[in-house]
Amino acid sequence: MKAVIYNGPRDVKVAKVPDAKIEKPTDAVVRMTTTNICGSDLHMYEGRTSFEKGRVLGHENLGQVVEVGPGVDRIKKGDWVCLPFNIGCGFCENCERGLTGYCLTCNPGTAGAAYGFAEMGPYEGGQAELLRVPYADFNCLSLPDDAEEKQDDYVMLSDIFPTGWHATELAGLLPGETVAIYGAGPVGLMAAHSAMIKGAARVFVVDAHDDRLDLAKQLGAIPVDMRRCDPVEEILSHTNGLGTDRGCECVGYQCCDRHGREANAYTMNSVVASTKATGGIGVVGVFIPQDPGAKDALAKEGKMAFDFGAFWFKGQQIRTGQANVKAYNRRLRDLIQVGKATPSKIISHRLSLDDAPDAYKHFDKRDAGWTKVVLKPAA
Amino acid sequence: MKAVIYNGPRDVKVAKVPDAKIEKPTDAVVRMTTTNICGSDLHMYEGRTSFEKGRVLGHENLGQVVEVGPGVDRIKKGDWVCLPFNIGCGFCENCERGLTGYCLTCNPGTAGAAYGFAEMGPYEGGQAELLRVPYADFNCLSLPDDAEEKQDDYVMLSDIFPTGWHATELAGLLPGETVAIYGAGPVGLMAAHSAMIKGAARVFVVDAHDDRLDLAKQLGAIPVDMRRCDPVEEILSHTNGLGTDRGCECVGYQCCDRHGREANAYTMNSVVASTKATGGIGVVGVFIPQDPGAKDALAKEGKMAFDFGAFWFKGQQIRTGQANVKAYNRRLRDLIQVGKATPSKIISHRLSLDDAPDAYKHFDKRDAGWTKVVLKPAA
Amino acid sequence: MKAVIYNGPRDVKVAKVPDAKIEKPTDAVVRMTTTNICGSDLHMYEGRTSFEKGRVLGHENLGQVVEVGPGVDRIKKGDWVCLPFNIGCGFCENCERGLTGYCLTCNPGTAGAAYGFAEMGPYEGGQAELLRVPYADFNCLSLPDDAEEKQDDYVMLSDIFPTGWHATELAGLLPGETVAIYGAGPVGLMAAHSAMIKGAARVFVVDAHDDRLDLAKQLGAIPVDMRRCDPVEEILSHTNGLGTDRGCECVGYQCCDRHGREANAYTMNSVVASTKATGGIGVVGVFIPQDPGAKDALAKEGKMAFDFGAFWFKGQQIRTGQANVKAYNRRLRDLIQVGKATPSKIISHRLSLDDAPDAYKHFDKRDAGWTKVVLKPAA
Amino acid sequence: MKAVIYNGPRDVKVAKVPDAKIEKPTDAVVRMTTTNICGSDLHMYEGRTSFEKGRVLGHENLGQVVEVGPGVDRIKKGDWVCLPFNIGCGFCENCERGLTGYCLTCNPGTAGAAYGFAEMGPYEGGQAELLRVPYADFNCLSLPDDAEEKQDDYVMLSDIFPTGWHATELAGLLPGETVAIYGAGPVGLMAAHSAMIKGAARVFVVDAHDDRLDLAKQLGAIPVDMRRCDPVEEILSHTNGLGTDRGCECVGYQCCDRHGREANAYTMNSVVASTKATGGIGVVGVFIPQDPGAKDALAKEGKMAFDFGAFWFKGQQIRTGQANVKAYNRRLRDLIQVGKATPSKIISHRLSLDDAPDAYKHFDKRDAGWTKVVLKPAA
Repeated sequence: MKAVIYNGPRDVKVAKVPDAKIEKPTDAVVRMTTTNICGSDLHMYEGRTSFEKGRVLGHENLGQVVEVGPGVDRIKKGDWVCLPFNIGCGFCENCERGLTGYCLTCNPGTAGAAYGFAEMGPYEGGQAELLRVPYADFNCLSLPDDAEEKQDDYVMLSDIFPTGWHATELAGLLPGETVAIYGAGPVGLMAAHSAMIKGAARVFVVDAHDDRLDLAKQLGAIPVDMRRCDPVEEILSHTNGLGTDRGCECVGYQCCDRHGREANAYTMNSVVASTKATGGIGVVGVFIPQDPGAKDALAKEGKMAFDFGAFWFKGQQIRTGQANVKAYNRRLRDLIQVGKATPSKIISHRLSLDDAPDAYKHFDKRDAGWTKVVLKPAA
Repeated sequence: MKAVIYNGPRDVKVAKVPDAKIEKPTDAVVRMTTTNICGSDLHMYEGRTSFEKGRVLGHENLGQVVEVGPGVDRIKKGDWVCLPFNIGCGFCENCERGLTGYCLTCNPGTAGAAYGFAEMGPYEGGQAELLRVPYADFNCLSLPDDAEEKQDDYVMLSDIFPTGWHATELAGLLPGETVAIYGAGPVGLMAAHSAMIKGAARVFVVDAHDDRLDLAKQLGAIPVDMRRCDPVEEILSHTNGLGTDRGCECVGYQCCDRHGREANAYTMNSVVASTKATGGIGVVGVFIPQDPGAKDALAKEGKMAFDFGAFWFKGQQIRTGQANVKAYNRRLRDLIQVGKATPSKIISHRLSLDDAPDAYKHFDKRDAGWTKVVLKPAA
Repeated sequence: MKAVIYNGPRDVKVAKVPDAKIEKPTDAVVRMTTTNICGSDLHMYEGRTSFEKGRVLGHENLGQVVEVGPGVDRIKKGDWVCLPFNIGCGFCENCERGLTGYCLTCNPGTAGAAYGFAEMGPYEGGQAELLRVPYADFNCLSLPDDAEEKQDDYVMLSDIFPTGWHATELAGLLPGETVAIYGAGPVGLMAAHSAMIKGAARVFVVDAHDDRLDLAKQLGAIPVDMRRCDPVEEILSHTNGLGTDRGCECVGYQCCDRHGREANAYTMNSVVASTKATGGIGVVGVFIPQDPGAKDALAKEGKMAFDFGAFWFKGQQIRTGQANVKAYNRRLRDLIQVGKATPSKIISHRLSLDDAPDAYKHFDKRDAGWTKVVLKPAA
Repeated sequence: MKAVIYNGPRDVKVAKVPDAKIEKPTDAVVRMTTTNICGSDLHMYEGRTSFEKGRVLGHENLGQVVEVGPGVDRIKKGDWVCLPFNIGCGFCENCERGLTGYCLTCNPGTAGAAYGFAEMGPYEGGQAELLRVPYADFNCLSLPDDAEEKQDDYVMLSDIFPTGWHATELAGLLPGETVAIYGAGPVGLMAAHSAMIKGAARVFVVDAHDDRLDLAKQLGAIPVDMRRCDPVEEILSHTNGLGTDRGCECVGYQCCDRHGREANAYTMNSVVASTKATGGIGVVGVFIPQDPGAKDALAKEGKMAFDFGAFWFKGQQIRTGQANVKAYNRRLRDLIQVGKATPSKIISHRLSLDDAPDAYKHFDKRDAGWTKVVLKPAA
């Protein structure tokens, strides 16, 4: 089958690889029809991870089931399914409690597995014609009759829509509250979309790119351009000097300060400062335990110069981590079906698998207008 | 009336001051019978705060009502009452939601007020013969018939028992879970007592003092002597290498590492390391936004070199802040009344008001055996 | 002052009564500018309660403060305020936990007090020129600069908007879920409005009046006309035979079956039947412990022939009771201010105080088009 | 293999039946070493259900794995395991949320499956030498090294201990609160044990049998003998006339009033009356949608004359249903392991499989002293 494989730093290529196939009785194989390039694919693309040459990328996957193993009961050949990026077993202590992003079975020795991702287990990605799905009954989200037609919306259930939603859940957002979202990449925009759906009174979105800020505004949020103002001061000025009820970090360890310099504590210290005393903060931007490629001495060790004193004195909470996609994907699917959620709004490019190498280049450079790329392997 | 007043760094004295009196219709005046010296009084004692000379210390207070204002309906002369250290108005946005530690009324411009405390409003402390209690109907906890007899237990409802309980609440502790508590001072010991009452399966308590570790053991916890082992390794070895379900920080910004050197990130980075992925962490040890007296450059600014990467990667939560005493004090009172909680167990000294200057000296030096000092102004 | 007083069964009149005044240091007096007639006023109007002749009606009140007692700190003369229908003290065990609908202080011997209501304490109502507000700092909701202009929206914060919201909270409604609301009176319509704001996927509203079903549709809900279909079968047919995730009862003990006959178990047994196994049910329709005026023998004793077996077998939950208005009114106010909630949509009549007797008549008869009446005492 | 089979009303016998075996790749077969007779087995024993002749009874099962299917990854031959009485698939909407008692897969057309139970799917029971366990990775609770030695405690994790715990969870019991438990059968006693472990201040247990009330007292509860007093009045007199914070129903539809007459509303109306306004009620006693064998006309239809008016007026909550065993069994296992829970205390008889017919007779008659029977098939 054809697949997008990692070929070294800033080098991916489309190549023939062996077909994905049933390896265990509980597996399914899915023919990919839509699969996205995610911002987190760029960590591997840029060569800052241990991802091996020759492995297939892609963890935002949707398609149609072509085969199931003898231990699969629910999923049938022909079903349209969307796959959560995190792979769960369904029966470990964490999966059992819904913490499927921290499965203790699928990637032994750590917590959490994913398709086509460094350090997240041996699973190949879905930027390919076929994908093997482990524990298929547990991992496949069944899609309704309009699956094929609305696949550009439903594919967002694999990662960025639930991840944006998770940011607002971790922050504890309630209807009628205010929230500030740092980062208007695809995840930050989905956090804004989520906050609007949940009935937030006001949603501030902080970023430094015009196209992203425009999308935030289209989603109903109040854009805060950090090139033109200090976002903390701006948000405080809109909230009687007290700060928002909630804050979301949707950038991660490579965040930059107002002058465009990488500063891993910038967004976290800002969100502490722009959130009110007793407020809640959700962090879905990725932070990593070691970052040898960083320039800053603390950052190399996965540390940051965090304003812990301010954080404690304000009696705030921080909740973190990757989204447990299955905690939300049924309900978000239903919102898409009835037309109350339309995450495809942020898609900028729909391309064939063969276009992937070029798309990675543009997306990695953050070229204007390359907001979100969707690949169509079956096209 | 007689009162313990601050007279400069490491200098308190017992002096005559004007009687506490009704200043507003909603006030009460309480005759103090039991009032404790708290570890946090030492911040002021040591002169590391803005606390003014001549002010009365004491925020752990119990006594009998002697007078109420015309706007007081519930509390009557003669009632035995225990006063939460934090003073709430009862009607601001935070008090309304039970966040009485972050009252927006009683200390305008910030969130949170207390008796006899730096930066926590103009209220005098209770290490005195009389105490003025604002918003008396809201702030007084009424005590049952055995109040006088059990006042050494009930007085702990003013601060350390609810604060220790709060640590376990912030951590999200459930019955049957494991928890590691860093710090076996009065608050850490009360956290251990709370965890046992709540049905924790195993409670680890980390400290470096024999008397405190002994008390932890008497309360049913597993003492971890950080002088003899690395507490993180020790706790991981007892929990299959995964860590405890929950962790509590009960030390604060002046915490020391295993070699006794002040290292403000030591307990936080340890608790992140000894808590499992997806686990919850509660922080009731005090951390402050600026600490000019610190030696470390980051610490001066209220920052710490925090292992944020490990924290995020493990998908943990941190909840912080001073206890909202009123959220728990009724239920903890009832546990004392039926004999299921006995926080007075950790009292080492019961002294007269006149003994306060000497007691402060010993307690500040952490002299062996000076675990918890209770003063008896009426004696 | 002028006031609408109860003068016997189906007889109210506008009369001169003594001015409302400060009676306790914690009181305020508010000049009424907007005050609604509520469906629950009809219980008293119809003479089926112990409400005394001469008392002033009205518990949905908004106006401007004209005087405050010496124990009032927050509220000032000139403030625009909306008053929750339930009166709380702010310091009893229930108020402290936010259960202000069950205050143990304001109506001794029972739980819960209200303005101008039978069995809810000695407080006069607000269908008058002036209203005395006890515990003013606790009970007044401060309104923003657009208070006067938007008072027809803000007045709904006194009762029906929070009560409708409460129905969805008691039911446990989450975004992306389905909910069935029984009753499209003002409270049921507000429940539908709330469910839409919260991001419900689909909202069914059951009623038997065209004007109400039309309003439900305008609010985004799916109207279910119980005259034309069995609502349980209709809802099951839209939900794969499983039922909705959540159900709300917004009618109460005088509910009627499909044939218009009073049948106090009809809505409850229907909501159990149309809600899925494990689903949640919220009941804000009023049910009373004794109803001597009922025809049915069980109903006289406050009992109903409830399908408890079906309820248990489905593992459902029922949560009940009047709304604790203060739990929601700040956030709902903010949604009104930003234009995301517009509860005034359901108002059918804006009248002067003098028009009240006539309005009561029409409203009591449920004359077509008399959905919600708002009185303007200051006009 | 030998098994206890149903042979008609009040007739069970030990017979040879075909060995339990692997039927699907995700199955395991477990050799039973401990299996209990449960009060709910008596419904089938008495012939009041549709349970078919020849089927094997027993849903409280513990043993050692003898074989696993090729789709089983976690469980291995030789593992000691305890089986939740409810069988879940792990991947349906309900299992996914932890509602394993309402699995939508294992018993198609309804919600919830169990071993050896009428209307709960085709699964045979464990009062036999071998048991087939579907979805073994999901359903088996792994036991620690002391499994064999402590199997009389661990076997209670299959049903009654989690069910009793569930009663207190459904009621919303918090540490320091009061709770009244109706019924001191095995489940009621386990509810009392659970409440004590969770730090309840006072636990009242209502029953009419001396041996059960004695056991309640031994567990730390306050026995209330309903033969000697009205339990509602008694409980109100101990709680200032207000009632307990929480109430638990642990009897079910065959409950009797103080005069020993079956009265299906007796316990529910009592628990509403003895629980305070705003209090929470958990119902784990079984109530069924139809009961043709009942004498009372309402009861035949699964209805009861419920005090809904009082329930609503007090603003209470009722949560119901069978325990989702997997929600608790890991933590309760850990409490047993450290010795903080000892559910085996209530066992009255340990017998061989051959003794089962005799044991059923005594247990059905509620003969004095026959509190809880444990069978040992491997003995």
